[in-house]
Amino acid sequence: SQKYRITLLPGDGIGPEIMAVTVDVLKAVGQQLDITFEFQQAKIGGAAIDDTGDPLPPSTLEICRNSDAVLLAAIGGWKWDNLPSQQRPERGLLGLRAGLGLFANLRPAKILPQLIDASTLKKEVVEGVDIMVVRELTGGIYFGQPKGIFPTETGEKRGVNTMAYTESEIDRIGRVAFETAQKRSGKLCSVDKANVLEVSQLWRDRITQLAPEYPDVELSHLYVDNAAMQLVRAPKQFDTIVTGNLFGDILSDAAAMLTGSIGMLPSASLGAIGPGVFEPVHGSAPDIAGQDKANPLAQVLSAAMMLRYGLDQPLAADRIEQAVLQVLDKGYRTGDIMSEGMQLLGCRAMGDVLLTE
Amino acid sequence: SQKYRITLLPGDGIGPEIMAVTVDVLKAVGQQLDITFEFQQAKIGGAAIDDTGDPLPPSTLEICRNSDAVLLAAIGGWKWDNLPSQQRPERGLLGLRAGLGLFANLRPAKILPQLIDASTLKKEVVEGVDIMVVRELTGGIYFGQPKGIFPTETGEKRGVNTMAYTESEIDRIGRVAFETAQKRSGKLCSVDKANVLEVSQLWRDRITQLAPEYPDVELSHLYVDNAAMQLVRAPKQFDTIVTGNLFGDILSDAAAMLTGSIGMLPSASLGAIGPGVFEPVHGSAPDIAGQDKANPLAQVLSAAMMLRYGLDQPLAADRIEQAVLQVLDKGYRTGDIMSEGMQLLGCRAMGDVLLTE
Ligand SMILES: CC(C)[C@H](C(=O)O)[C@@H](O)C(=O)O
Ligand SMILES: CC(C)[C@H](C(=O)O)[C@@H](O)C(=O)O
Repeated sequence: SQKYRITLLPGDGIGPEIMAVTVDVLKAVGQQLDITFEFQQAKIGGAAIDDTGDPLPPSTLEICRNSDAVLLAAIGGWKWDNLPSQQRPERGLLGLRAGLGLFANLRPAKILPQLIDASTLKKEVVEGVDIMVVRELTGGIYFGQPKGIFPTETGEKRGVNTMAYTESEIDRIGRVAFETAQKRSGKLCSVDKANVLEVSQLWRDRITQLAPEYPDVELSHLYVDNAAMQLVRAPKQFDTIVTGNLFGDILSDAAAMLTGSIGMLPSASLGAIGPGVFEPVHGSAPDIAGQDKANPLAQVLSAAMMLRYGLDQPLAADRIEQAVLQVLDKGYRTGDIMSEGMQLLGCRAMGDVLLTE
Repeated sequence: SQKYRITLLPGDGIGPEIMAVTVDVLKAVGQQLDITFEFQQAKIGGAAIDDTGDPLPPSTLEICRNSDAVLLAAIGGWKWDNLPSQQRPERGLLGLRAGLGLFANLRPAKILPQLIDASTLKKEVVEGVDIMVVRELTGGIYFGQPKGIFPTETGEKRGVNTMAYTESEIDRIGRVAFETAQKRSGKLCSVDKANVLEVSQLWRDRITQLAPEYPDVELSHLYVDNAAMQLVRAPKQFDTIVTGNLFGDILSDAAAMLTGSIGMLPSASLGAIGPGVFEPVHGSAPDIAGQDKANPLAQVLSAAMMLRYGLDQPLAADRIEQAVLQVLDKGYRTGDIMSEGMQLLGCRAMGDVLLTE
């Protein structure tokens, strides 16, 4: 029997509720497939600020490091919105990414046939959309130096951030993207702003230089403004997209919203070695926290991504993903994805029907 | 009789065709309203590269400076795609913006009822969408120093660009945005990434500090990733959006594509003093250049923006905009906006029906 140590970071808002459901699902699938999960829990984000003043206490990072994978729920809320930026919940997330070296962020945006009406786009435009955004996550303008607010010679302030990538940073995310495209339909689109930015020129050069090593992948390039347009105009043209940290932040959210149901979307953040972090794309939804109304499915699907990409247990991942499709097929819905004729369930009840699959 | 000197920059691809139609429309409206236009022409982009090796010859900038407004068509094409980036057509555009100090870029994205079916979004989602993106155009990461590709200590290359804004740069675009919102529905949304970037924190602080001077404007803030989502999810929530150069590039294109017909969208780029530049949002469409197939309406509407924002001739602007709506009402369409039951016209013929309005 395979045994894994999983760190749970429920975080804030609806985090604890959706995490509880997910743990039950993992236990059930573990029993079926003879996998043992040993769970350990730690605080991050607002919950950690309340406890220790630090959105990422050193002990949390340590616990994460000593595990095979990290399952994160959601971070942040109104309560902490007025803290100085260095002490806000999101900093815990950025610190976790940096601390674990999670340079590759995989964000699928897949239209589920059961939920296609939730999209604001016309059915024929989004039917079959299945995009994987591979976002660089530990470089670019999120971490580049110098950064800060500095006085100018004339006495006014100047805010500065630096978008920077080295060749090796580009190469390693490029390789993840090519390999991801290989496992999918073999189409990779690299997004940059090479007509304006030098950092993007280097990006484009390096990605282009990697291409001959992956002859089965068809590589194309788009400028980021055009990519944003094309996602709205004809999203089916995309399979795998690779891009930097900031462009990936924007485009993965735009792509996610094409589905109309971001309460369904998981993500994976992976490093070269050590545990990955798996978390839903949606936020902590403080408005419905503690009311048993949250949709746990993105969190459950994040656990499936953990099994697939973090623990190499594709069978268990398949089983969870199948169960999610089944409950949707049977018409079960949480409030965020509710539509006429379907059966409305709370968070916990959605977990229960999942367990019967 | 009022007299204006207009510089025409037809540029590349379909530029000359759509410019010719627009000049005729301007002449006609000038005759009706007793406005005299004196046209002077210059080269920019690929056309200028072919002539002089420089995408923005000093003489072109000089001619532009000595005019009341600049009407630009489109720049670029395959022919120049393999030149080193410093010599490419787009550099002419960036040079023109910097050279004329055009810090404020107004990009409307308005759904025309006649063309609503062209949108990939559902009718009820986009009906009535009328967004004005106010994009900062001479600062931010487009122009920030340092930039370039530099060797690192380990001998590999590092690409670097700097996103920077000073307080005064933020204030002046902020004022344009508040004033724009005042003339519209009074709602202004400022877009940044203040949860990660210091330059965005300064941006948010300054925009917030301007707000009390515009008590009739309701100010809100969104992070750029959320803004990209919200544009897809519920575009009607937006009226005026203000943002930096890079975010504005991305979001204005996404907003434009919501309409489904970017062949219809004009833009204005304005400085503190001196002539503004007015140009369509679409590109040079080299694939249909010289075939009399191009849609001249975005160029014609750019002339209307020139009259409204550059020359303070709102009556003439109204007249042109009305004429465009009329020809659409009558069912005239170019290929890019063609739909069943409508009458297909070429570029020149579209100009002719406009002139009869
Ligand atoms: C919360 C924020 C710092 C974060 C980011 O910008 O990366 C979020 O938007 C995301 O995409 O995970
Ligand atoms: C051509 C390019 C340099 C330009 C920009 O990025 O500003 C274009 O995309 C635009 O939006 O006008």
